[in-house]
Amino acid sequence: MSKTPALPSQEEDFSGWYNDIVYRAELVDLSPVRGSFVLRPYGYALWENIQRDLDAMFKETGHENLYFPMLIPMSYFEREAQHVEGFAPELAVVTHAGGKELDEPYAIRPTSETLFGELYSKWVNSYRDLPLLYNQWCSVLRWELRTRPFLRTTEFLWQEGHTAHATAEEAMAETEQMVQVYARFAREFGALPVIVGEKTEGERFAGAQVTLSIEAMMRDGKALQAGTSHFMGENFARAFDITFNDVNNQQAYANTTSWGLSTRFIGALIMAHGDDKGLVMPPKLAPHQVVLLPIFRADDEVARQGVTDAVRKIAAELRATGVRVRLDDRPGFSAGRKFNEWEQKGVPFRVELGPRDLEAGVVTVVDRLTGEKEQVAIGEVSQGMPQRLADFQDALFRRAEQFRDANTFHAETFEELKEMVEHGFVYATHCGEPESEKQIQELTKATVRCIPNDGPSAEGTVCVHTGKPSGYARKVIFAKAY
Amino acid sequence: MSKTPALPSQEEDFSGWYNDIVYRAELVDLSPVRGSFVLRPYGYALWENIQRDLDAMFKETGHENLYFPMLIPMSYFEREAQHVEGFAPELAVVTHAGGKELDEPYAIRPTSETLFGELYSKWVNSYRDLPLLYNQWCSVLRWELRTRPFLRTTEFLWQEGHTAHATAEEAMAETEQMVQVYARFAREFGALPVIVGEKTEGERFAGAQVTLSIEAMMRDGKALQAGTSHFMGENFARAFDITFNDVNNQQAYANTTSWGLSTRFIGALIMAHGDDKGLVMPPKLAPHQVVLLPIFRADDEVARQGVTDAVRKIAAELRATGVRVRLDDRPGFSAGRKFNEWEQKGVPFRVELGPRDLEAGVVTVVDRLTGEKEQVAIGEVSQGMPQRLADFQDALFRRAEQFRDANTFHAETFEELKEMVEHGFVYATHCGEPESEKQIQELTKATVRCIPNDGPSAEGTVCVHTGKPSGYARKVIFAKAY
Repeated sequence: MSKTPALPSQEEDFSGWYNDIVYRAELVDLSPVRGSFVLRPYGYALWENIQRDLDAMFKETGHENLYFPMLIPMSYFEREAQHVEGFAPELAVVTHAGGKELDEPYAIRPTSETLFGELYSKWVNSYRDLPLLYNQWCSVLRWELRTRPFLRTTEFLWQEGHTAHATAEEAMAETEQMVQVYARFAREFGALPVIVGEKTEGERFAGAQVTLSIEAMMRDGKALQAGTSHFMGENFARAFDITFNDVNNQQAYANTTSWGLSTRFIGALIMAHGDDKGLVMPPKLAPHQVVLLPIFRADDEVARQGVTDAVRKIAAELRATGVRVRLDDRPGFSAGRKFNEWEQKGVPFRVELGPRDLEAGVVTVVDRLTGEKEQVAIGEVSQGMPQRLADFQDALFRRAEQFRDANTFHAETFEELKEMVEHGFVYATHCGEPESEKQIQELTKATVRCIPNDGPSAEGTVCVHTGKPSGYARKVIFAKAY
Repeated sequence: MSKTPALPSQEEDFSGWYNDIVYRAELVDLSPVRGSFVLRPYGYALWENIQRDLDAMFKETGHENLYFPMLIPMSYFEREAQHVEGFAPELAVVTHAGGKELDEPYAIRPTSETLFGELYSKWVNSYRDLPLLYNQWCSVLRWELRTRPFLRTTEFLWQEGHTAHATAEEAMAETEQMVQVYARFAREFGALPVIVGEKTEGERFAGAQVTLSIEAMMRDGKALQAGTSHFMGENFARAFDITFNDVNNQQAYANTTSWGLSTRFIGALIMAHGDDKGLVMPPKLAPHQVVLLPIFRADDEVARQGVTDAVRKIAAELRATGVRVRLDDRPGFSAGRKFNEWEQKGVPFRVELGPRDLEAGVVTVVDRLTGEKEQVAIGEVSQGMPQRLADFQDALFRRAEQFRDANTFHAETFEELKEMVEHGFVYATHCGEPESEKQIQELTKATVRCIPNDGPSAEGTVCVHTGKPSGYARKVIFAKAY
């Protein structure tokens, strides 16, 4: 039997660790399509759980789902000047269909502001038609040059919300509401202590007036933008003629927003929580919250029967309490191999039961986060599991929060900034000049991740780079980013 | 105020009725993309409900979801001779991406047997790896010339199951299991009394050895194929080299299946249940099962307050019993306009409450199927609603079944066949010769919908067209079809 080489350690080779674990844990596989990956069942189940919980939050905040075509006439992109500049280089273009060359080529959607703009122009006539609060779950395509599973792929799955409002104030309130929905989702479900803030001009979405984002810290200290919410003002309304008669019967332009979260979020879960043994799944999103392993010698039929009956009963009880259980009774695989597989896949709890355990009336519960083993009476394992899962979720969040705080620094000088961004997030004062931002990126590889909503005040401080007054009320966060 | 022209009656102009109601009920809207439609929230909510319930049935039968790329290298289609012949004319082709011409163009998936074949070849090595029981929910694209909302669209949403098995028997059992899953779903959730049967050679899926389908009768007597399940034998396994070592360590080809149900199913719901007033939604799939209408004069603030409080309480009680409720308290729309809207949209029950009702302690419950109105005590409306909805679902199924049976005929001669297919489904004996099938289609516009699993025996009868012996054990069903 050939031995699989060990997973690289995060410390030695974080990038190698990531590129290895996504395949070993069977989250994705390569495809023959450049930069597109197959989402395997274990990876897709994560996305299904993200969809279920995030969709419920969208519906609670009054949004409805719908579905727009994946093709967009090429000419639509040219209607909004910044938008075409941002997306034209990445478009995949359908030039032939049904055996003929098309009169006008279509792009596969890289994002759908343009097509929504076209229909919103039709649907919005009076202030009574507003707001429109819609979202769609779909796949999009952006022809990226350098791709990595989940982080940057030519095709990816996401949701894109598109809303239209009567006033700029309402649209801005929606933009803020949705970034807070993402932050709450990331914290409560993903156990990710994200930072909410506004993007600088250079990092805004192509066509937006304001872009808000949630930023998560990965275990190599880099940032990952895990969700964004954009205030478009009247930009798209003017480009697509979304006008309405207001309460005073005056014609006005609508104000629009858009907001999206994608399978990139899975990349954040992997890199924020994983360790040298593999993934660690937050229980609320884990495909399997508990894996149940019956253990017996292949030739001991009596033990097999007893152990199998007992674990089936435990599985049924766990399911009845709402726990997602995987009973792994696959023949032909050793217990050791199964331990490794589920450890790599990051299942929060492993519950083992062998013939001696059965005699003693106990199971062994192994915690994926701490590695601790505990003997638990068979009759008590299912009733205690929801609390164990809740505690695991909290502990995972706290660990990520402690890690983030321990790797967040404050720079007073450019030299400090340059050194500190090698290790994590760095608060510093910035003048807000795009040219200075660009130079800092060239010199440090770090960018302004955001102007955090609740970061330290910049009052009385000067830019670490130019020495000019701060461009914002608060210090910004610099970091290297995915 | 301009008056909207009346919906055409089904009797006079069924096709006009259909083309009108899909827009009026806000199921779809036109898009600037040829033959693609926007699924509006009311139409998409139907699809969400279909997904939820059908997906649960897939999981119960041991299937897992995953996601494959939407692009497929063009050369893949050429590997299976019948498959390329069937699909090549309908492909939409991406020739440029990222600002460059591609070395090999990609097709947007019209169906994914080829790409699954490629990956299955990698995932299947030993009999221990089998079966693979996977499904994906996605959109597909087929460049159709004549398109109609839901029935035939260039882009549509569907699920495609793809499985691989060690033996032909297992794969055939899967093919049959999945068509039965579709039949059960159509009957229990869609209230559609579908017929299950096998397709003749000429109507098979491109590349399949056996195609099974469910066929539903529309209210104009035509058939609609609402789901299909295909046994591929070794066709795709040979084309994509899906081989494995069997229990005796001999190399063998896998046997594969695929099965799909699409947004076409919504077309079946519309045309099987709708009437001259609009849609009639089966409660189990209805976006709103009950619409609650508070009724009061705009200038009567006291009445507004009392009525609004009472309907909110009823809405909360209905939701607590698991009923999907829409409380329509939109200002600026008359009660009459709201009645019409919800009637057209086919909401099973309308519950009205005005100031006098409130004094009397009752609501009026209006049944969309029968039009009957009933006074119900306010305190009893929510507890009785689940039973009402179940009864409505049953009544809708029985009505569709009676309609189907009343419009199903038995032809002994070709003249009878020709006349009868103008009115519905026709059982007749057929010789099974493709050439005869083609001629019958030219002469009658009808095709063999299926060889039903439980139709009348063909023993001792001869073909209505050629006079030759029957090609099958049972009579076939001829019908015009969507």
